[in-house]
Amino acid sequence: MLLADLRLQVLRANQEIARRGLAPHTFGNASGVDRSGSEPLVVIKPSGVDYATLTPADLVVTDLDGKVVEGALRPSSDLDTHTYLYREFPQIGAVVHTHSEFATSWAQAGRPIPCLGTTHADYFHGPVPVTDPLTAEEVAEAYVRNTGAVIVRRFRAEGLDPIAVPGVLVSGHAPFVWGKTPAEAVEHADVLEYIARLAFRSVLLRLGPDHSGVSDSGIPLYVSEHHYQRKHGPRATYGQG
Amino acid sequence: MLLADLRLQVLRANQEIARRGLAPHTFGNASGVDRSGSEPLVVIKPSGVDYATLTPADLVVTDLDGKVVEGALRPSSDLDTHTYLYREFPQIGAVVHTHSEFATSWAQAGRPIPCLGTTHADYFHGPVPVTDPLTAEEVAEAYVRNTGAVIVRRFRAEGLDPIAVPGVLVSGHAPFVWGKTPAEAVEHADVLEYIARLAFRSVLLRLGPDHSGVSDSGIPLYVSEHHYQRKHGPRATYGQG
Amino acid sequence: MLLADLRLQVLRANQEIARRGLAPHTFGNASGVDRSGSEPLVVIKPSGVDYATLTPADLVVTDLDGKVVEGALRPSSDLDTHTYLYREFPQIGAVVHTHSEFATSWAQAGRPIPCLGTTHADYFHGPVPVTDPLTAEEVAEAYVRNTGAVIVRRFRAEGLDPIAVPGVLVSGHAPFVWGKTPAEAVEHADVLEYIARLAFRSVLLRLGPDHSGVSDSGIPLYVSEHHYQRKHGPRATYGQG
Amino acid sequence: MLLADLRLQVLRANQEIARRGLAPHTFGNASGVDRSGSEPLVVIKPSGVDYATLTPADLVVTDLDGKVVEGALRPSSDLDTHTYLYREFPQIGAVVHTHSEFATSWAQAGRPIPCLGTTHADYFHGPVPVTDPLTAEEVAEAYVRNTGAVIVRRFRAEGLDPIAVPGVLVSGHAPFVWGKTPAEAVEHADVLEYIARLAFRSVLLRLGPDHSGVSDSGIPLYVSEHHYQRKHGPRATYGQG
Repeated sequence: MLLADLRLQVLRANQEIARRGLAPHTFGNASGVDRSGSEPLVVIKPSGVDYATLTPADLVVTDLDGKVVEGALRPSSDLDTHTYLYREFPQIGAVVHTHSEFATSWAQAGRPIPCLGTTHADYFHGPVPVTDPLTAEEVAEAYVRNTGAVIVRRFRAEGLDPIAVPGVLVSGHAPFVWGKTPAEAVEHADVLEYIARLAFRSVLLRLGPDHSGVSDSGIPLYVSEHHYQRKHGPRATYGQG
Repeated sequence: MLLADLRLQVLRANQEIARRGLAPHTFGNASGVDRSGSEPLVVIKPSGVDYATLTPADLVVTDLDGKVVEGALRPSSDLDTHTYLYREFPQIGAVVHTHSEFATSWAQAGRPIPCLGTTHADYFHGPVPVTDPLTAEEVAEAYVRNTGAVIVRRFRAEGLDPIAVPGVLVSGHAPFVWGKTPAEAVEHADVLEYIARLAFRSVLLRLGPDHSGVSDSGIPLYVSEHHYQRKHGPRATYGQG
Repeated sequence: MLLADLRLQVLRANQEIARRGLAPHTFGNASGVDRSGSEPLVVIKPSGVDYATLTPADLVVTDLDGKVVEGALRPSSDLDTHTYLYREFPQIGAVVHTHSEFATSWAQAGRPIPCLGTTHADYFHGPVPVTDPLTAEEVAEAYVRNTGAVIVRRFRAEGLDPIAVPGVLVSGHAPFVWGKTPAEAVEHADVLEYIARLAFRSVLLRLGPDHSGVSDSGIPLYVSEHHYQRKHGPRATYGQG
Repeated sequence: MLLADLRLQVLRANQEIARRGLAPHTFGNASGVDRSGSEPLVVIKPSGVDYATLTPADLVVTDLDGKVVEGALRPSSDLDTHTYLYREFPQIGAVVHTHSEFATSWAQAGRPIPCLGTTHADYFHGPVPVTDPLTAEEVAEAYVRNTGAVIVRRFRAEGLDPIAVPGVLVSGHAPFVWGKTPAEAVEHADVLEYIARLAFRSVLLRLGPDHSGVSDSGIPLYVSEHHYQRKHGPRATYGQG
């Protein structure tokens, strides 16, 4: 069986999606990529299988074009989005797709999540972007692949670094999140849900007449920058170093 | 005892209503219909009995007019709505009535739930409709039966297919949901609650001044149609096929 | 020890407040009255004692003026509200005070809860009323007793029957709820919290521009009346009769 | 090992932050100060260590300038805020920093929490204040220490007593809360989250057109004063005295 270790990591990431309540039913999936061989290989959840019964052998191995290399089950119906991201973002090693409730609510509202606080700043360098809706042509041509395309288009248009901004809201759909490893991608998905909850409430508190303080565009850039750098920069001071 | 297998399915559906938190106290009920005999028979929860102590023998069997055929207990006070739906929607095999919190909040607001995202599109073909309020005459004449009547009226008026739109919000009351089997009806009730939660938050996020993206009438029809067809259409690609 | 049976009922009601999450910390209390003797006697929770460690012997027995008849501990600091209600509402047998989250949020907003749905109609005959704020003189003179006074004043002013409307929101404070027995009073407190949650969300859904359906004053009276009567009227059809 | 008893209290306070869900991941920390010796000593959580595995020996002891006196691990990255508060507020014995969800949402909205109810009045004497955002200079010079400075500046500007107002919202960040002991500081953090939840909902209920009752500036001062004094004043009547 190919990629035994990555299979375990991807299995655990899929189980974590369920354990942390990031996707009801089977609305979510995690994958990982191994770029060490001559050709990169992707390990991904099979489609519509319950998280509770998933085993390493159920996972499907494909190449970067989505061709199945090993596995008896049909891969996740979102496979072509995952492979698109792996092709275009060579820095990333894992992708997680959830339908976590508050992040999905922002995606459905078509609003980027502004950076309103320091936890956001610790994990996402700037707002969590939202894609354009797909056009009718894009849906008709290749819906799942073009979901990847609108994500990448947003990142190119805004000059975003997928390591510094490890996730996106697909308009009218739900978040895609990534990281260097499957465990990191799930952590980013979990934190995204947390900051989506906070921002939802902060935005509602600003509807009233008597708010004051920080502007709607978020906390000052010098604060968010300070937080991001103290966690990720060359002189990070967070944790046991 | 008649219909031993359907009794078990209906019992389990009633227990699932409680287990998933879709109805506090005894505010909910599930039924199923067996259309295989010369006359269709309905199996339904008895009124006001706690889910935890319910046994198959407690369930009540009636004909399609609500006449008790077997059972010592009084049937659910919502029986006449269930039988009305079975008479008018011959495609359906089970009905679930819940008071799940967010779906009920939409029903109380008298608002249909717009299709704002792809999970909605996967399960409901278009908005979740809301009925008109019953008139004073309808309440006085036969409140429970006319609850069924306003549901069917809404479906006829909009030309809705009850298989493609497997549920409705009764204005000022709560949802009624259905499916081909009791298990499917409960799954639809659970998903309805999930999309009601998401839509509640998305709608609030659009109250603010700075939203953008998809319109209030929901995601583009070509996206929702694509999602519905990939799950339910003749060439469905979701799951293990 | 006086009133062993009522002590047990009151103890259980206090424990239910905690078990159902209706009051964090020790912000809640239940009492019951025994009107069978020559002089009515009240059994009430002692002040500031944790629900988990409460025993029947900890409960305090007072007369209707709040004079301690039996008990080593200081009675609940809300005692004078309870006794005021027992004196003025001779129909009731138990009082529960909670700080349940959504009911308290309505109380803090100074808004009555409109009857927006049938569950509300099943339990409360009309809106859940909110008191006037106490005046400075009322606070200075006897804060706790006058909390009872503003409750009773609201009921007299609107001609409300405390059996048909088994609870109230004290403006800027929290709910007081009652019933014929301690168990019924706790059930009313639990249902009040449920309808407060629903109404909170329904009211927010009506802030948007595109709502329709039932008016802000709630569901039609002929619907709420029908629901109330089918549960409480002389020809009730709910439950096993 | 220095300060064995205070270590245990601080350890338990850190564990309580996790147990009560006041901080996801490791976004939170508690400390205590011992002022009995010739020089005050602070015991604080190490940075980025999981609450579940924390032992008394992991805690770090520093002086009031943040110099490590005992401990192998790096202290919490928020240490300089804690020590600033200990230097400026000699009345306090413990500091707790959380990212509890609703309090943080208020902090992100830049809004003080108005005193809308009696539970608030029991614990916080007046609104929960919010700091000014730090200036770019303050961030550049010493971000963590100046977080303490903006807190103290708000208290000096409004003449607030840190014992009567045992916490603050740092604008765009999260709450800092304190007390005489670590256990009391955690209780204050927990109550702050509770009143933040209530006030969030009460404020939203006031967005609608048909609210009435208490003004946006909160309950009358004579009510909040009465509540505060009956719990904290010289003639307190709450609890077993």
